[in-house]
Amino acid sequence: MKIISYSIRDDEMPALKAWKSQHPDVEVQVESENLTPETASKAQGADAAVTFQQAPYTKEVLEELQKLGVNKLSLRNVGIDNIDLPVAEKLGFQITNVPVYSPNAIAEHAAWLMGRLLRRVPEYDAKIKQRDLRWAPEIGREMRMQTVGVIGTGHIGRVLINILQGFGAKVVCYDIFQNPEIKAADLYVDSLDELYQQSDIITLHVPSVKENIHMINADSIAKMKDSVIIINVARGDLIDTDDLLKALDNGQVAAAGLDVYEKEVGIFNKDWAGQPVPDANLEDLFRRQNVIVTPHTAFYTETAVENMVQKSFDASLQLIKGETPDTLVKY
Amino acid sequence: MKIISYSIRDDEMPALKAWKSQHPDVEVQVESENLTPETASKAQGADAAVTFQQAPYTKEVLEELQKLGVNKLSLRNVGIDNIDLPVAEKLGFQITNVPVYSPNAIAEHAAWLMGRLLRRVPEYDAKIKQRDLRWAPEIGREMRMQTVGVIGTGHIGRVLINILQGFGAKVVCYDIFQNPEIKAADLYVDSLDELYQQSDIITLHVPSVKENIHMINADSIAKMKDSVIIINVARGDLIDTDDLLKALDNGQVAAAGLDVYEKEVGIFNKDWAGQPVPDANLEDLFRRQNVIVTPHTAFYTETAVENMVQKSFDASLQLIKGETPDTLVKY
Ligand SMILES: NC(=O)c1ccc[n+]([C@@H]2O[C@H](COP(=O)([O-])OP(=O)(O)OC[C@H]3O[C@@H](n4cnc5c(N)ncnc54)[C@H](O)[C@@H]3O)[C@@H](O)[C@H]2O)c1
Ligand SMILES: NC(=O)c1ccc[n+]([C@@H]2O[C@H](COP(=O)([O-])OP(=O)(O)OC[C@H]3O[C@@H](n4cnc5c(N)ncnc54)[C@H](O)[C@@H]3O)[C@@H](O)[C@H]2O)c1
Repeated sequence: MKIISYSIRDDEMPALKAWKSQHPDVEVQVESENLTPETASKAQGADAAVTFQQAPYTKEVLEELQKLGVNKLSLRNVGIDNIDLPVAEKLGFQITNVPVYSPNAIAEHAAWLMGRLLRRVPEYDAKIKQRDLRWAPEIGREMRMQTVGVIGTGHIGRVLINILQGFGAKVVCYDIFQNPEIKAADLYVDSLDELYQQSDIITLHVPSVKENIHMINADSIAKMKDSVIIINVARGDLIDTDDLLKALDNGQVAAAGLDVYEKEVGIFNKDWAGQPVPDANLEDLFRRQNVIVTPHTAFYTETAVENMVQKSFDASLQLIKGETPDTLVKY
Repeated sequence: MKIISYSIRDDEMPALKAWKSQHPDVEVQVESENLTPETASKAQGADAAVTFQQAPYTKEVLEELQKLGVNKLSLRNVGIDNIDLPVAEKLGFQITNVPVYSPNAIAEHAAWLMGRLLRRVPEYDAKIKQRDLRWAPEIGREMRMQTVGVIGTGHIGRVLINILQGFGAKVVCYDIFQNPEIKAADLYVDSLDELYQQSDIITLHVPSVKENIHMINADSIAKMKDSVIIINVARGDLIDTDDLLKALDNGQVAAAGLDVYEKEVGIFNKDWAGQPVPDANLEDLFRRQNVIVTPHTAFYTETAVENMVQKSFDASLQLIKGETPDTLVKY
């Protein structure tokens, strides 16, 4: 049995080595390159492929793999929107992803962003760099005094609720499907409008399905408390960035913590070597002291990476053995 | 009734105004200067003084106040080590402080320092400033995977324990006086050595009484896990800075988050205007990417400052009325 793995990073090697030593009967071919029409030929002789990339899985790529008899594809990440699924289905591909690798990685990142904004860390960092060690005027706020609105109480939202409650913050939630535990704890409000009205901090943990795209826009911001803090570690297109920038300019939004950005593909996880990034809005966000942008690193923890490697290779092996992984993508 | 208040900062004014409007019968004289032998004369006609400063309350200052008939002194902070207490006692001073204003301010700050170090924020910040948006190699760690050793389970340590448990971290504690709740939750280990052995992160919440000075030194560090993270938001002299620097150099200590420093008096809360600070060890700490130094700002939140103002003025008024505040300093 042989698995070819694309886009392997150095930080994945410890987990990959651990998996290999647990599966001595499986040959694993390690490639650092992305899966492209050009690199697909490397899959010659493999029974399945494991991948992780933001670059598209086009008809061409899939056909190349298919020619080599490789039609088992296991993604180490969750997103499958960059796969040409109709073609994949027609070519008989079996695809798996890793929908849950570490909700804590993301939820903790959201909490850390809140903390850095509440305590005005970017402003202090700039002062301290200049060895201006004065306290005033950047007085901080305490998490326990905040009402935090959690939109989406799925895997990540629920972990975050526990974290926030540990701080003693007041939590209000909204979800189109109510989770029984959160309901029992009486944390749901009846509408997004109610959540907007009550929250000092609003944090997004919903998917970017059609109805949710640009849910944070001039209209919804107008319903929020003045000087609200907005956190987005979910998907960039949940926020209308133009509207957010305007609200940051006029103070309606006091601060924002963003791990995702609508047009991040092709920009994040690249080195722009001291140049402005090729997106004016994103560059604008980077330059503000009341905005923290992290380049989609919320997921990037030792635990999450280990789980992504382990779960994708496990699923790949199941596919090879003719078993049905519970992460099999349904067409 | 008249209270003179020294060292009033802008950020204290909202709380001060609130207190004044609740006490229309009390005249409050507001001074931004410290209480010194020179400014003491401003207390002429006052019944009591409220202060907040790191500068010493010398024999001279106290005698000046005494000459004006002012021997009621209410500190807005906790520390009384800068008061010449034998002289104060001889001159018949009644002194109050604010021992507890917001344990959460300090505990939250400790948690935020942990988060920034676990997620390698200083390194990412430096990269992002250069628009290097690559993830690797600064992979983060999750709080829930850490064992955190909390030394001192008083007001602050206990709040921090709740925060850490919200993240799902494992908490082990040590205190010379065991708190019944923490004991019931079975969080205590029997010795500091045990705590050192088990902890991935060690955080200090004890006073700097004689036995505790330099408790973190080459010997205790040698007992800790390799690559431990050390957090100190308590008192600077709990750590032997020379030993800490050596351990940071050789990797025994992976990272440190420090809100206090042994020789901070006269350095923190001042503007060094782009120059190195006048302390080689502190400057060295500032320059490291695996060390975060904040200039004793853990306490600096809206809630804490409000409580400090309110509680000190309440105590001052009690002294004027001949009542005994429960924060009266015992000689
Ligand atoms: N930044 C990162 O590195 C990173 C990593 C993983 C996941 N994510 C993103 O985080 C988000 C949440 O992930 P999850 O694992 O918790 O997902 P999940 O499916 O477990 O939970 C999502 C929840 O959102 C709810 N929901 C959907 N539309 C809603 C709406 N309009 N209003 C309210 N609730 C709505 C669903 O009912 C569900 O409970 C997703 O967008 C995911 O893409 C980001
Ligand atoms: N950074 C800041 O802005 C800031 C602000 C306020 C207080 N502090 C400092 O935080 C520390 C804790 O404050 P607190 O309000 O929680 O105090 P506290 O008195 O409520 O608790 C201190 C605890 O330490 C324990 N203790 C004393 N010596 C010990 C030892 N050798 N080993 C183990 N336990 C020991 C005591 O039994 C007590 O339970 C103090 O040093 C205080 O000066 C810092």
